[in-house]
Amino acid sequence: MAGSPFGWIDEQERVRRSAGLVRTLRPRPASSPLLDLASNDYLGLTRHPEITAGAADAALRWGGGATGSRLVTGTTQLHAELERELAAFCGFEAALVLSSGYAANLAAVTALAPHGSLIVSDASNHASLIDGCRLARGATQVVPHADPEAVRKALDAQQGQAVVVSDSVFSVDGDAAPLAELAGAAREFGAGLIIDDAHGLGVLGDGGRGAPQAAGLSGADDTVVTVTLSKSFGSQGGAVLGPARVIDHLVNTARTFIFDTGLAPAAAGAALAALRLLRREPERAARARAVAAALHDLLTAEGLQAVRPDAAVVSVRAPSPDEAVRWAADCREAGLAVGCFRPPSVPDGISRLRLTARADLSDDQIAQAVRVISRNAPDSAFITGS
Amino acid sequence: MAGSPFGWIDEQERVRRSAGLVRTLRPRPASSPLLDLASNDYLGLTRHPEITAGAADAALRWGGGATGSRLVTGTTQLHAELERELAAFCGFEAALVLSSGYAANLAAVTALAPHGSLIVSDASNHASLIDGCRLARGATQVVPHADPEAVRKALDAQQGQAVVVSDSVFSVDGDAAPLAELAGAAREFGAGLIIDDAHGLGVLGDGGRGAPQAAGLSGADDTVVTVTLSKSFGSQGGAVLGPARVIDHLVNTARTFIFDTGLAPAAAGAALAALRLLRREPERAARARAVAAALHDLLTAEGLQAVRPDAAVVSVRAPSPDEAVRWAADCREAGLAVGCFRPPSVPDGISRLRLTARADLSDDQIAQAVRVISRNAPDSAFITGS
Repeated sequence: MAGSPFGWIDEQERVRRSAGLVRTLRPRPASSPLLDLASNDYLGLTRHPEITAGAADAALRWGGGATGSRLVTGTTQLHAELERELAAFCGFEAALVLSSGYAANLAAVTALAPHGSLIVSDASNHASLIDGCRLARGATQVVPHADPEAVRKALDAQQGQAVVVSDSVFSVDGDAAPLAELAGAAREFGAGLIIDDAHGLGVLGDGGRGAPQAAGLSGADDTVVTVTLSKSFGSQGGAVLGPARVIDHLVNTARTFIFDTGLAPAAAGAALAALRLLRREPERAARARAVAAALHDLLTAEGLQAVRPDAAVVSVRAPSPDEAVRWAADCREAGLAVGCFRPPSVPDGISRLRLTARADLSDDQIAQAVRVISRNAPDSAFITGS
Repeated sequence: MAGSPFGWIDEQERVRRSAGLVRTLRPRPASSPLLDLASNDYLGLTRHPEITAGAADAALRWGGGATGSRLVTGTTQLHAELERELAAFCGFEAALVLSSGYAANLAAVTALAPHGSLIVSDASNHASLIDGCRLARGATQVVPHADPEAVRKALDAQQGQAVVVSDSVFSVDGDAAPLAELAGAAREFGAGLIIDDAHGLGVLGDGGRGAPQAAGLSGADDTVVTVTLSKSFGSQGGAVLGPARVIDHLVNTARTFIFDTGLAPAAAGAALAALRLLRREPERAARARAVAAALHDLLTAEGLQAVRPDAAVVSVRAPSPDEAVRWAADCREAGLAVGCFRPPSVPDGISRLRLTARADLSDDQIAQAVRVISRNAPDSAFITGS
């Protein structure tokens, strides 16, 4: 193998191994005995019988796949129905469903930041927004995290078209962007605003209508929102929401829309079922937030360093990548699945346990989770002194 | 709306409209009376009861979504099973399933073309490979279409690491890349080879094992193959196949793998069912090729300009974008769905009808399709004189 053109990979693998940063896949069974605080199933819907039936029925009725690009044979009436109901739910004129949230972010950013334009991008934005900036023809300026004043300065220095790009809830620490202030800054300079609401939809806003709705930005003609169907909606896929002219523009220009196969009917069916269930049971959104707040309060009462959650993600600081991995493994040993974020998945290099609040967790399960996390924490994870 | 930051879109829309290049979505019903020669359902499996049952059963058993990144909670035993069987079928050491073929191409190219390396890319490569080149840290050199000598020259001018990137079957004209010659050129200079077999899997090679298998490249330690699960396999998703060290490297470094939700269980289940059916009925691959050849022969006998198909895509030249649209619309009116490719989806600016051969088309259906296409063709689509 020495002569393989991919031999250089082995050296990188050695470096990763010595830094404790090797990732491996751990296939899970259909029914796991673990208490799950690691998934992004914020509303506890992915195994809900209405959602799995929505997926199964759609596959049986529409087929295993969409069979082509959305522009050729890949748009079914089911896709159109999902798009109509999703746009109406979140309060936007139109919606466009893609095969993933990643694809939705690449589509929105590349289509709305043409040559000569400026993209102002939050330093903690998700990888898919960053890749969108890198693929777009416009120039990108990265600004400090959650800093509307920095956005204002960047826009002030620009003559032409501009767009401000931000997550609504940041995946790693679960903190929220100052959306109203960002919108104010964008409007002051006539710039557009693209908000990735992957972690807000289903959790924030009235009955889970999302962070932009909570910030009064629904239906604004200068605001475009991307969402994912794979978190609160328990399915797969992503969508772009916004003015009809923007959605038409994406249909005509967005490469990850045009040159990709349409979302599978089963995923569209599951997402539609989740949306309808959430409309009927809007209290699920508030419950997810309450579970997150309870996790945070109980963990900090134990002396651990948790970030106050703005949505359903609770981040707990770990002393090092190695200790984060060991901590998560010990929790798993004790029956609890938690996320473990290490470089390069964390922009600031700080490793964390990442807990996700699910609306269907009971108070007993919350207490149990806190007990397991606290008992298995490395000594240096606790705040000492003062 | 005049003051909207997205007002510039309207001007682009006017330009597109006057050029006859506006695209709109046409939602289709669950049962269409149209004869379908437009989808990429090459083996006719997407509505096959085993495939839809595979999707439905997986959703009911595993849930509506994968619930997280493959690195956190998004890897089920179903994903692992699909990866094992797919790698074995195509003759590679390992496989990694992603949410789309687009994501698989971005993952493979970015992970295997680090800073300082050279990517040699065919001028007619798919948009997802092009975007992979643009996102990769390596430098890209685009070489003329299907030209191993140009590849050799590009590699000869390079000192360091390099990778050659090509579709196996080109989506627009359905012509095949000279894979054996490309591999020879890559090997001569110690470069790696990345082959996108989206349109080869299920159609070319022994029993549909794909174009790399047909070219004797299965299992080569210098060859990486990407495939899609949304064409011959009637589902959704993509995969990267290659040496285990390369797959491990992708697990650790490929952003579209790490930062995306895992493929939905229903899609994994449908793809696995299709793979197993194809192993049992390998003759489907040859039938798809035979249908394509028949379409080509009958259309050229009518005097139309069709490219001799190397797989299951048959491209017929249209005089202009407007006439291509009208031709396709007239076919549809007469009960036949065909693809219509116009700029900017065609690299050379030439509009075409794009027909896909399905293994389940009868000889009568083939004859009917040819009759409809021929009767509705614009006069200038026929070869005249000579």
